[in-house]
Amino acid sequence: MNIRTDSAILIGVLGGMGPLATVDLMQKIIEETPVSRDQDHVPVVAWSVPQIPDRQQALAGTGASPLPALLAAVGQLNRLAVSHIVIPCNTAHHWFDALATESRAPLIHIADATLESLARTVKNQVQAPSKIGLIATHGTLAAGWYQQRFAGLGSATLAPTEQEMATLFVPGCYAVKRGELQQGGALLERLAQRLVDRGAERLVLACTEVAPALAAVKSRWLDVSIDPARALAQCCVRQWLSSERRL
Amino acid sequence: MNIRTDSAILIGVLGGMGPLATVDLMQKIIEETPVSRDQDHVPVVAWSVPQIPDRQQALAGTGASPLPALLAAVGQLNRLAVSHIVIPCNTAHHWFDALATESRAPLIHIADATLESLARTVKNQVQAPSKIGLIATHGTLAAGWYQQRFAGLGSATLAPTEQEMATLFVPGCYAVKRGELQQGGALLERLAQRLVDRGAERLVLACTEVAPALAAVKSRWLDVSIDPARALAQCCVRQWLSSERRL
Repeated sequence: MNIRTDSAILIGVLGGMGPLATVDLMQKIIEETPVSRDQDHVPVVAWSVPQIPDRQQALAGTGASPLPALLAAVGQLNRLAVSHIVIPCNTAHHWFDALATESRAPLIHIADATLESLARTVKNQVQAPSKIGLIATHGTLAAGWYQQRFAGLGSATLAPTEQEMATLFVPGCYAVKRGELQQGGALLERLAQRLVDRGAERLVLACTEVAPALAAVKSRWLDVSIDPARALAQCCVRQWLSSERRL
Repeated sequence: MNIRTDSAILIGVLGGMGPLATVDLMQKIIEETPVSRDQDHVPVVAWSVPQIPDRQQALAGTGASPLPALLAAVGQLNRLAVSHIVIPCNTAHHWFDALATESRAPLIHIADATLESLARTVKNQVQAPSKIGLIATHGTLAAGWYQQRFAGLGSATLAPTEQEMATLFVPGCYAVKRGELQQGGALLERLAQRLVDRGAERLVLACTEVAPALAAVKSRWLDVSIDPARALAQCCVRQWLSSERRL
């Protein structure tokens, strides 16, 4: 028995990178949904199997490719007839095109979701920020997804220096993956401060470990930050609310 | 392509009742797992599709049975070759036997997990608590799963009165389902206080909405509480750590 029709909404979360970021996205989907009872919530199936080769190491040429495991996960989600697939891991978007080609269900790109969120914010102001600070892995920075989209808004991107990556971003990110949110948050808070000091008017937290870590240390920079995981959650909720054939 | 062998651990979460309780269980599985990197975490697939008829209403005879939707969810999880199924909703355990019969993967009962947790706590003390306060839905209270297990430890059960159910438990629980954790937490805190006033030495929070709500109001009764969702998370982690064939 299958309780849904093929055109119904069922959000597939390709998660586990890390599992905390998966839970964080699911929590944000709940927070962003207007509900009065359980049944109003977005239907989600989350594949959170963290035994995927490290994405940062693969892109640095020091580890195996995660692509076979990612393709397997996409296959499993499609077996459940998901309507859309989202990936709460920016770095994994390096393999986005390869996954989208193999998936029956369309994938929603986290940078597209972020740009929608940023564009809505900008619409309410006189103009786009002239400089946007981008906190992301080497892989995400090198891919250029965010920088290209920011340029389309007329905004320049401020990225961390190589030294900031080595001393603040990378150790901060791996501290979060070990569950040490306070330690990770303190390092990432210092990185946010550096970008603001260099003129960033907004920050885009384009690694899904960053927003939970800054929240853990109650960072004052959250107020000027765009959280791509929340933007992705909002995209999922919009799909659900606009669906005429809810379950 | 399937990335796991049939004997590998993959925890299937039959969730969505409500979705917050599902996220809460996933968060607790993460917290309870000793890790140094993403890949050490428990592999989980969560079916969080909240379009399941209300369990409390079904048991009260005022709503449709959730069994067809629950069976469909069990079927979907089995299609992904999960090794175990857990249900982060106490009331849904009313249909546990019917689901277990139809499932290839074994189901872990939340009251068994709770008893294991309670037995470990008791082992470290001189004797079992003489009175355990049980916060649960009418359906869970009527089923007797917890009371029978507490009696096996030599502990009596203190349940809320019918008036406390109507004025504190039910409105508190539905407030959480609407996302109003502060309001729900305040009501459930008062219920916890009543049970302690009547002599409960420990509280078992046998409705998965209760622990997150008490946490939201920083309830002082959390220190004497057993959270069945955390006990269930610990069971999942033990399965994972004892597996010789991790992914």
